[in-house]
Amino acid sequence: MPILLAPDQAPTLDELLAAADTSGLTWQIESSADVLPRIAGLGTLAGAGASELAFLANPRYQSQLESSQASAIIVAPDVAASHRAALAAAGVAGCPLVVCSEPYLLYARIAQWFDRAMRGQLPRDVHRTAVVGDVSLGNGVSVGPLAVIEDGAIIGDDVVIGAGCFIAAGSRIGAGSFLHPRVSLYRGVTMGERTLIQSGAVIGGDGFGFAPDKRNPRGLWSKIPQFGGVSIGNDVEIGANTTIDRGALEDTRIGDGVKLDNQIQIGHNTQIGAHTAMAGCVGVAGSAIIGERCTFGGSAMVLGHLTIVDDVHISAASLVMSSIDKPGRYTAAFPLAEHRDWEKNAAVLRQLARLRRRIQALEE
Amino acid sequence: MPILLAPDQAPTLDELLAAADTSGLTWQIESSADVLPRIAGLGTLAGAGASELAFLANPRYQSQLESSQASAIIVAPDVAASHRAALAAAGVAGCPLVVCSEPYLLYARIAQWFDRAMRGQLPRDVHRTAVVGDVSLGNGVSVGPLAVIEDGAIIGDDVVIGAGCFIAAGSRIGAGSFLHPRVSLYRGVTMGERTLIQSGAVIGGDGFGFAPDKRNPRGLWSKIPQFGGVSIGNDVEIGANTTIDRGALEDTRIGDGVKLDNQIQIGHNTQIGAHTAMAGCVGVAGSAIIGERCTFGGSAMVLGHLTIVDDVHISAASLVMSSIDKPGRYTAAFPLAEHRDWEKNAAVLRQLARLRRRIQALEE
Amino acid sequence: MPILLAPDQAPTLDELLAAADTSGLTWQIESSADVLPRIAGLGTLAGAGASELAFLANPRYQSQLESSQASAIIVAPDVAASHRAALAAAGVAGCPLVVCSEPYLLYARIAQWFDRAMRGQLPRDVHRTAVVGDVSLGNGVSVGPLAVIEDGAIIGDDVVIGAGCFIAAGSRIGAGSFLHPRVSLYRGVTMGERTLIQSGAVIGGDGFGFAPDKRNPRGLWSKIPQFGGVSIGNDVEIGANTTIDRGALEDTRIGDGVKLDNQIQIGHNTQIGAHTAMAGCVGVAGSAIIGERCTFGGSAMVLGHLTIVDDVHISAASLVMSSIDKPGRYTAAFPLAEHRDWEKNAAVLRQLARLRRRIQALEE
Repeated sequence: MPILLAPDQAPTLDELLAAADTSGLTWQIESSADVLPRIAGLGTLAGAGASELAFLANPRYQSQLESSQASAIIVAPDVAASHRAALAAAGVAGCPLVVCSEPYLLYARIAQWFDRAMRGQLPRDVHRTAVVGDVSLGNGVSVGPLAVIEDGAIIGDDVVIGAGCFIAAGSRIGAGSFLHPRVSLYRGVTMGERTLIQSGAVIGGDGFGFAPDKRNPRGLWSKIPQFGGVSIGNDVEIGANTTIDRGALEDTRIGDGVKLDNQIQIGHNTQIGAHTAMAGCVGVAGSAIIGERCTFGGSAMVLGHLTIVDDVHISAASLVMSSIDKPGRYTAAFPLAEHRDWEKNAAVLRQLARLRRRIQALEE
Repeated sequence: MPILLAPDQAPTLDELLAAADTSGLTWQIESSADVLPRIAGLGTLAGAGASELAFLANPRYQSQLESSQASAIIVAPDVAASHRAALAAAGVAGCPLVVCSEPYLLYARIAQWFDRAMRGQLPRDVHRTAVVGDVSLGNGVSVGPLAVIEDGAIIGDDVVIGAGCFIAAGSRIGAGSFLHPRVSLYRGVTMGERTLIQSGAVIGGDGFGFAPDKRNPRGLWSKIPQFGGVSIGNDVEIGANTTIDRGALEDTRIGDGVKLDNQIQIGHNTQIGAHTAMAGCVGVAGSAIIGERCTFGGSAMVLGHLTIVDDVHISAASLVMSSIDKPGRYTAAFPLAEHRDWEKNAAVLRQLARLRRRIQALEE
Repeated sequence: MPILLAPDQAPTLDELLAAADTSGLTWQIESSADVLPRIAGLGTLAGAGASELAFLANPRYQSQLESSQASAIIVAPDVAASHRAALAAAGVAGCPLVVCSEPYLLYARIAQWFDRAMRGQLPRDVHRTAVVGDVSLGNGVSVGPLAVIEDGAIIGDDVVIGAGCFIAAGSRIGAGSFLHPRVSLYRGVTMGERTLIQSGAVIGGDGFGFAPDKRNPRGLWSKIPQFGGVSIGNDVEIGANTTIDRGALEDTRIGDGVKLDNQIQIGHNTQIGAHTAMAGCVGVAGSAIIGERCTFGGSAMVLGHLTIVDDVHISAASLVMSSIDKPGRYTAAFPLAEHRDWEKNAAVLRQLARLRRRIQALEE
């Protein structure tokens, strides 16, 4: 459904595949037509129309193949073979196929090409209403309306800073990074290259640090000012309204390739290893050390000052209360039930220790 | 307590009731005074003062009726009768009563009248500091200071866009909708009429979509660019700092009359049926299909790619891990206990499967 | 690691201790050198370099004492004694020590001095791009670029309002309060003195109030407009992207010294007692009354219309479903397990009520 480029900017199918980054993938175009179609957009099998490319990655949707209105379809070799046979039996030509053993990945790479092409249409200048101090700006930088960049920030080549962003003094943003509108970067935030931040994210807010202070006439808690920064690697993605706190003295660290969904909270001094991914609403308390290639389901929660090794997978809504020293999948979710059943089981849950004693008594 | 209108703009009680939308409700004013009071504001029974209207909806507060300083009170017929008797016994006149079998709903309708009256006082123009591109603006539109509206947006009549909002190219906002300050609408967001968005909400951020990509020299995850939009119905409310992601190829859909509280996260491609309401901090993962008239308690979590039928009610903090095909109330919450008791029960919980085997052994 | 002041602005160690607020604490400097070092920043034992002050509060890090490159170190008396002995045995001079029985608290107080010194360097004026209406501004107020302050706001002395903040008509901000960039204050928010709000917070959004309304042609829910405000005490801290809703008719109330971390949601009409602290992602539904000096672990959830007394401590991820009338620590978290074990135990959990009946049968 989404037409992404104007017809005169749309490449033909073979031009598109030549232009996209298909490194590591093999593919071939099968077409009985003389001329390959122009591809102006992408779509689902059911939703794609003329001049759109679709893909079939999930066998569940195979029945949609024949009725698809797409101009071309990416399919796996076995699907291509059976589809060809069906077309031949029906005496129909069918649209061109792109045959690849990893259709979804090839689709992703082609979609990335469209994304870059659209991004290339952004104006590469500083909007007249932006408030930009004494800043080092790379080539091809785009600064949107009403963005604020304080003195001393260093902005790499081809960076895009959306409308209404706030970039504090002393921030550094690596080449090719992209900030959607209304992102805050406090002082002392360092971002790598090709890192993407969605709207409303706040990077570098004060960590939540207080010393109990009974002598303080103004209350129980004495604030520990937070002087560290946040250090974010390359190819990181940070979701909308996600917050990452600055360290107390040293940096909170987000490794290369980390993917954080929306509404995530990362506490101060935390370290997240490369390529770890977290779904929406996850919370990580302060000073946690999380390994590489971990995944966290939505709303999972990690307590502070603990260590999780590489390749740990935490299920949604599960609380990690202590360190995990073995890779694997871990879960801590109460099973859903009809409310009446839940009530009965929950009542017994409150008496589990007593129940065990009753079993012991029976055994004796 | 809140005085909402200046005295010279305040209607008399009968004018107010005539002006408010009381369709479907029957009511009558009972007053022994010649002149009905002007109503400049609203208050609780205990807090209302002169020229304020209060209401009694919860019998729990009935004892506050006699001492209330309100200028008029909305009550149910039975309460009116007993209150009249009490006043007669005391030989006191009492303030005018508005008698209605649904006092809370009548109060809501009157409060809405005040809300519209206050909204009517907003300047209906584009603030000189707003950055407005080549945009289709309806009649009576208000654009606040430093808002940004990109080329090609379509803004209906009487829309209010608060200070510092960002409205991307190609957005459509239906008549009478209201965006509080600092809301982000990405490209391709369509909103219906009379829809209200609180400050800090982000609509249309990229969905969290990545293909595992071992061949990617830059990491495990290859981004799936997100080209769909977000389609929001009429009479929807979206809370502060809530995020709704754009679809991958087609739209994320929020039905008519849906009410979303603050800090909610809605994943890409999700569909939420009409009149479903979600309390704060709820998370819904991608591609979930949720029915009509459902309710979700605070911090409930719904996994992706599942279906929930109409009229399902999920309790607070409960995780929905699989589809629900039957209306009803569902719960998955661990019961709170003193920490020491929890520790004992939690220890047994880890051995439940073993415990069952011990019971089986005893039974055999 | 963080150098906070330029060398010519850095105090000597004794000047620093005289300048910092050390009320209630006793301390002394032990140094064998003639001249005390200038202190330009703070650091961890392992990370501090020349002209930085470090501290040792956790015995776990004592081994780092000898190799620390800090220019001075805060230590407890017993640590000072053993360190002196070790230095004497090694024939080494060592850096100056600040001996204090509460090293962490002394560090906090010194860090606060640096924080104030850095804050003192902010320009104390209204940025030319800010949009400031007819407002009462105190002395020494700083308003950042592109902030919006509506008519009738009252801003106390030495208040800092960051870039892109929105301060609605009728707000009051007490002396010495500090708003980081991109904070929203709706109409009718009152803040005390020395209160700190992190970026992205939204104070005063509409409470989530709807009356079921079957007669409403536009849906099930009829909005209850929210006319109360938010009243925030002195010395409060509010985290990034945290949201606090306005009351329906009276104010939502946040007591003195309350500390709220990031991504917290506070519902309308809620009252939070003085010095209560909540970690990230906590949610509190409407009309809850929470006592003083309570603590809430990350992602804890409190239902509405309930009361929690003073000195209650709720563990992370725990749901409070009913009122708590006794101080103490309460928990409601499912224990984490390897997924396979969890599956087995969860299956039994669904049958707990039946299991108890089987035990009863065995006992009979």
